[in-house]
Amino acid sequence: QRTYRIAVIPGDGIGKEIVPHAQAALEKATEGLAEFVYEDFDLGAERYLRDGSILPDEDLERIKQQDAILLGAVGDPRVKPGVLERGLLLKLRFTLDQYVNLRPSKLYKGVTSPLANPGSIDFVVVREGTEGLYVGAGGAIRRGTPQEVATEVSLNTAFGAERVIRYAFELAMKRRKHITLVHKKNVLTNAGDMWQRLVDAVGEEYPEVTHDYQHIDAATIFIVTDPGRFDVILTDNLFGDILTDEAGAVVGGVGYSASGNINASHEYPSMFEPIHGSAPDIAGQGIANPTAAILSSAMLLRHLGLDEAADRIERAVEADIAEQGSSRRNTEQVSADILARL
Amino acid sequence: QRTYRIAVIPGDGIGKEIVPHAQAALEKATEGLAEFVYEDFDLGAERYLRDGSILPDEDLERIKQQDAILLGAVGDPRVKPGVLERGLLLKLRFTLDQYVNLRPSKLYKGVTSPLANPGSIDFVVVREGTEGLYVGAGGAIRRGTPQEVATEVSLNTAFGAERVIRYAFELAMKRRKHITLVHKKNVLTNAGDMWQRLVDAVGEEYPEVTHDYQHIDAATIFIVTDPGRFDVILTDNLFGDILTDEAGAVVGGVGYSASGNINASHEYPSMFEPIHGSAPDIAGQGIANPTAAILSSAMLLRHLGLDEAADRIERAVEADIAEQGSSRRNTEQVSADILARL
Ligand SMILES: CC(C)[C@H](C(=O)O)[C@@H](O)C(=O)O
Ligand SMILES: CC(C)[C@H](C(=O)O)[C@@H](O)C(=O)O
Repeated sequence: QRTYRIAVIPGDGIGKEIVPHAQAALEKATEGLAEFVYEDFDLGAERYLRDGSILPDEDLERIKQQDAILLGAVGDPRVKPGVLERGLLLKLRFTLDQYVNLRPSKLYKGVTSPLANPGSIDFVVVREGTEGLYVGAGGAIRRGTPQEVATEVSLNTAFGAERVIRYAFELAMKRRKHITLVHKKNVLTNAGDMWQRLVDAVGEEYPEVTHDYQHIDAATIFIVTDPGRFDVILTDNLFGDILTDEAGAVVGGVGYSASGNINASHEYPSMFEPIHGSAPDIAGQGIANPTAAILSSAMLLRHLGLDEAADRIERAVEADIAEQGSSRRNTEQVSADILARL
Repeated sequence: QRTYRIAVIPGDGIGKEIVPHAQAALEKATEGLAEFVYEDFDLGAERYLRDGSILPDEDLERIKQQDAILLGAVGDPRVKPGVLERGLLLKLRFTLDQYVNLRPSKLYKGVTSPLANPGSIDFVVVREGTEGLYVGAGGAIRRGTPQEVATEVSLNTAFGAERVIRYAFELAMKRRKHITLVHKKNVLTNAGDMWQRLVDAVGEEYPEVTHDYQHIDAATIFIVTDPGRFDVILTDNLFGDILTDEAGAVVGGVGYSASGNINASHEYPSMFEPIHGSAPDIAGQGIANPTAAILSSAMLLRHLGLDEAADRIERAVEADIAEQGSSRRNTEQVSADILARL
């Protein structure tokens, strides 16, 4: 029975309310299979407002020693936009080289989609996690004057794109063997052309996997009109951010959408989090849906090789949603119902 | 009775099939009110493949002399992505300084939305048209090697943002007086912060107009779950491209979505086009829906101050859709039905 060390970063808003339930599910699903030792990290808005620290080096070093990270959500209206996102969340993704941002979208039985005819929806977005417009390589001059110029630079490398492309092809082999590359190569010709060439090249090594291409604008249409067409969507950091939120909406709300920030070479711990944010508007009321966080703990278990326990959580969640789908329950109730099935 | 000169650029694919119907509607709606002299421009894939020219200087100079431009669509699978988009469509938008890309989204009576409960949808996206990631300021080194690096640079200026922000506030005053700024200011902190500051500043001059903010990822959710909340969406070039296609989907298809590329200072002609593309998959079959192109001609008339004729076209389209909504008609039939109502 192996012991795993897990860094827990509840973060802000509803993050704090849901993470304990993800831990509880993780515990219960692995009883007799594995041990977990948790280290809690007080990071996020409260800490920043208290002592000004965002992600101290010593915390980062301790996080690096863990086997995986469970994260709630980051973001608080009292803090200037970007401070916690860039300084904490993105700093973790980048420093821990979590280059695969894996985001499954599935319409569970019992969930009401906002679409009239959703059909069957079951795709995974493989979003690049360490490049693109997220690198923070912009600047501004003459700030606050009529002559202000502000730039944002998207940095893309063959090294960075190829590794996530390979991951997507491996994943497609275990699924319905179809990849849709999403970009905007008719406008972002430099990065788009590189992505397309690399997908074509890697694709030659996977003759069983078909791949096609859609512009990001067209992809947002198909997510609404024909989501069943997608198996694996492969895309860059910003387009992946946009598509996964839209996808969350069509599968009945981001309350069901988990994600993994994966260092697929296992040099550093991977990080698992719901794709929804800190939701300051409903924080503190005990009504946040813990399902996405609980599903994130299943992704964490799968990443550690504990597939059986991961399956158990996913089956419990599916059964819970199938039975309770649209019923109004608070955080505690949803968690208790899911745990009772484990 | 004034005479207006119109540059007609049918372009590629279905563009060629729908533009004549837009001209016919324009003619009929303005009978006895105005005269139009058309100059046709043979620009697009055919011309490029024939003699290699994309937008010759002499064509551009002649286009500049017109009062407005009617465009079909640009893009062809035989031409490398970006060549026609950058060299023709974006070159026109940029050279003619069409800084307001105006894109109304309206769910017409009789149209079936893919949403189960669409409610009433009637908003306008004001998309910046001459800056951002569309400027073409990227590059690549070591192309085709494992060391390739590709960049895309988003250039944003206070000058460019402020003028389109002012346009949005003026527009909001004529509508439901609410603006939603969409950006990604928690990641794109330089450009996002500039946009937010300028919206706040201009907003002070319009105390009757309320404004709020959404991240682009959250906005793609609300377009699906609560599109009725939007009145005027104000955003940059890339986010506007994405949101308007998604919006086109929820109002029943981009076949109903017109757009104007507007030089609001009237130094150069403005350009009107459907937001859909050249649709090579259905081109040549005579089945493309000309409604978006016909609605674009109404936007053109409104821009020239011919509001009455514009209203006439819009009413005819509304009545046609209300009656024929989901019936299957070919291009000629739809056009004939709309024209019969003018
Ligand atoms: C909070 C924000 C920086 C983040 C992102 O844009 O990646 C979030 O939207 C997400 O999708 O995880
Ligand atoms: C064809 C393409 C360059 C264009 C854009 O991205 O602006 C189109 O998608 C549009 O929205 O008009």
